[in-house]
Amino acid sequence: MTPIVAVVGGGQLARMMAAPATALGLTLRVLVESPEAASALPAHQTVVGLPTDPDAIQRLLAHPRPAALTWEHEHIPADVFDAAEECGVPARPGLHALLFAQDKIEMRTRMDALGLPNPAWTHVDTEGDVEDFLAVHGGAGVLKTSRGGYDGKGVRVIHAPHEAADWLRAAADGGPRVLLEEKVPFDRELAVLVARRPSGEMRAWPTVESIQRAGVCSEVIAPAPDLPGDVAAEAARIGEAVAEGLGVTGVLAVELFLAGDRILVNELAMRPHNSGHWTIDGAVTSQFEQHLRAVLDLPLGDTAPTAPWTVMANVLGGARATLTDALAEIGDPGAKVQLYGKGVRAGRKVGHVNVSAATRDEAYGRAVAAAAIVRDGGAA
Amino acid sequence: MTPIVAVVGGGQLARMMAAPATALGLTLRVLVESPEAASALPAHQTVVGLPTDPDAIQRLLAHPRPAALTWEHEHIPADVFDAAEECGVPARPGLHALLFAQDKIEMRTRMDALGLPNPAWTHVDTEGDVEDFLAVHGGAGVLKTSRGGYDGKGVRVIHAPHEAADWLRAAADGGPRVLLEEKVPFDRELAVLVARRPSGEMRAWPTVESIQRAGVCSEVIAPAPDLPGDVAAEAARIGEAVAEGLGVTGVLAVELFLAGDRILVNELAMRPHNSGHWTIDGAVTSQFEQHLRAVLDLPLGDTAPTAPWTVMANVLGGARATLTDALAEIGDPGAKVQLYGKGVRAGRKVGHVNVSAATRDEAYGRAVAAAAIVRDGGAA
Repeated sequence: MTPIVAVVGGGQLARMMAAPATALGLTLRVLVESPEAASALPAHQTVVGLPTDPDAIQRLLAHPRPAALTWEHEHIPADVFDAAEECGVPARPGLHALLFAQDKIEMRTRMDALGLPNPAWTHVDTEGDVEDFLAVHGGAGVLKTSRGGYDGKGVRVIHAPHEAADWLRAAADGGPRVLLEEKVPFDRELAVLVARRPSGEMRAWPTVESIQRAGVCSEVIAPAPDLPGDVAAEAARIGEAVAEGLGVTGVLAVELFLAGDRILVNELAMRPHNSGHWTIDGAVTSQFEQHLRAVLDLPLGDTAPTAPWTVMANVLGGARATLTDALAEIGDPGAKVQLYGKGVRAGRKVGHVNVSAATRDEAYGRAVAAAAIVRDGGAA
Repeated sequence: MTPIVAVVGGGQLARMMAAPATALGLTLRVLVESPEAASALPAHQTVVGLPTDPDAIQRLLAHPRPAALTWEHEHIPADVFDAAEECGVPARPGLHALLFAQDKIEMRTRMDALGLPNPAWTHVDTEGDVEDFLAVHGGAGVLKTSRGGYDGKGVRVIHAPHEAADWLRAAADGGPRVLLEEKVPFDRELAVLVARRPSGEMRAWPTVESIQRAGVCSEVIAPAPDLPGDVAAEAARIGEAVAEGLGVTGVLAVELFLAGDRILVNELAMRPHNSGHWTIDGAVTSQFEQHLRAVLDLPLGDTAPTAPWTVMANVLGGARATLTDALAEIGDPGAKVQLYGKGVRAGRKVGHVNVSAATRDEAYGRAVAAAAIVRDGGAA
C-alpha cells in the first residue's frame, strides 16, 4: 500500500509537494477549496471542501487512512486536529506547535521564554497602552493583529495612538488581539529554514536573504551574502532552537531582521515557505521533499546547496495573462521557471524563477530578468 | 488556457514527465492501459485505453485539444498519427522519425546512408544468409528481430545458422524481419542524449557510460569517465547527426559501443531514456522537462551537469515488496530516490537512485548501496 499524505491547501505550496510525493512513491491527497485550485491539477487525490467543513475533513481522512496530515497554511481550525486524532492520523505540525505560527502574541511570548531575540514588543488593549510604548520607542511602532496577517496584511506602521483605534476596537469586540512592536531599523531581512521530524532529527538549509518590496517577498538570495561575524551560525542556531523549543514537525521558516550585527526574530511559518523555493533547483533536497519526509518521520535529506549561488525571483501578477506564453520568450536556458497554475491578478504570487550561477550578480540579474519576462513579457 | 501535452504510455517515463509539466504550467494528459498504471497517479488527466483503440485515441485528442502528442515508447500504430493529423495535433516525434526507433533494419540502413558508424550487419532471410555472415565475422553474431525488441528481448547471440531457425521461420510467416550484426568486442557502453525541437535547436547532455547486467541497464555514470581521445566529442556529433538526419523532435537516446577508440551505434530510442535519469538530479534541465520543451517547440534548457559526477543506479524488483519502506532505512541523506509506483516483480525496473558527488567512486558506491537497500532491504 502506498503511504498517503493528506494536505490542507489549494495553493502553490501544496502544488509543489506533488513532484516529490511522486518521486518518493507516496500518494498526495489534497483538500482544495475548488477543483480549479492550484494544487488540484497535480494532486494525486483531491477532496473539494473547506477546512472548516467537518464532512470535507472526514473525506480527507477517509480510508485508506493517510499516514500523516499536514498543511500549507496556518489557518487550521482546532476541530481538524480532533478529527485527525480520532482517526489515528498524526497531524504535523501539531496544534501545540502551530499555535505559535497562528498567533503572534503567543509567538513573542514563547520566544521570550526561550531566550530568543525578539524586537521590543507589547500586547496592547488601549490607546493608552499604545501611547506608553511609542513614548519609549522613538514615536513609531509596528502594529499587528495577533492572528490572520499575511503578506503585509494585518501589519501597519503607526506614529500615534489613534492610528490603532480600529484594530483595538475590533479586538475589544472579540476580534484578534493586537500587539505593538518596535520598528526595527533593520538593514536586511534574512530567513532560516529548518526541517524537524518527530524523532528529533533536524536539518537547516543555508541562511538566505529575502528582498521585500511593498511588504511582499520579491527575491531570495541563497546563501545570504556577506553576513557579518557569526550571523549565519546564529541564524541557524535560532532556527533549530525554535524548531526544537516549539516541537515543530515539518519545515519551519524563521524570518529574521538583521540590524547591524543584531539579529531578531520577525515571523514564523510552519510549512514550506517562499524563502525556500530556491531549494527546488539549488539544493540537494527541496523544502517540499523535506516537508514530506519530516511529517512522515523519515530520515531527512541533505540540505547542501548544489551551486555557489541561487537566486529566486517571484513572479507577481502583471501584464501577461497567460504565463505559459513566456516559455517561448525566455532566452535564458538556465532559468528554472515554476508556474503555479493560478489566475493572474495584480500582485498575486503566480510563479517564480530560480537561477543558479557562479556569482551572485549573475544569478540575481538573470533571475530578475526572466521573472520580468514571465510577468510582463519583457518589460523589466 | 493551459497548454495540454498528451502522452501515450502508462510507465515510469510518462510518470516522470508530470513534475516538469506542473512546473511549466502545462496539463499532462496520459493514455494508460489501466487506472493502476505508473503514470496514472501523477498524470493531470487520464484516459484509459490502448494505443490500438481508436476510441481511446480520440479521447486522448479530444477538446480541449493537446498542443502536442508524444510517446514514452516506440510501439505506436500508424493510425494514431493519422488521427492526430486529422485533429491538427502535432505528433512528436513523427512517424517518419519514429520508424527508425521501431525498426532496426530501417535504422541500420539509415545510419549507413548518413555515414554514421554501424557495426557490420546484414538483413537475413535464410539460414544460408546467416552462415555466410558468420563465416566472415568470426563465427559469432548478434541476431535481432527488426521490431519488438526491448531490454534484451528480441536479441540473441548465435554461433550457428540453426540457432536462427525459429525467428527466420516467424519472419517468413509475416513476423518481424531479422538482422544479424557483428558481435562487437566492445569494452564499454556509452549513451548520448540529445533533444531537438521542430525549429531545429538541439542540445546534448554530456555522454554517459551505461553499465549493463544481463542485458539490462544497471548503472549510469555521468559523465562517462576517462574516454579516449575525442570520443566524447564524437559521441555528441553522432547524437546530433542522428537527431538532425532523422528529423527527431523530443529527446533522442543513442546507445553506443566503445571498442578501443572505435565508437559504433548500437540502438536508438526517441523518448526520455533510462540513460538520462541522472539528469533529474544531476543536470540543470532534466530529460523530462527537455522532452516537453522540445515537443512544444519551446527553447531548450541548459544541459550542463550540476555536480562533477552523478551516478544513477536502477532498482530492479527484488526481495522487498513495498519499496517506500526503504525510505526509512536509507541512511544516505544525498541519495535521491525515485520510485515508479509499480508492482514489484523480479527484474522489473521499479525505481532508481541518483547520487551526485565530487568523485566518481563516491557517487557510484553510494548510488549502488542505496539502490540495494531499496531493492532488498540492505543486502547488497
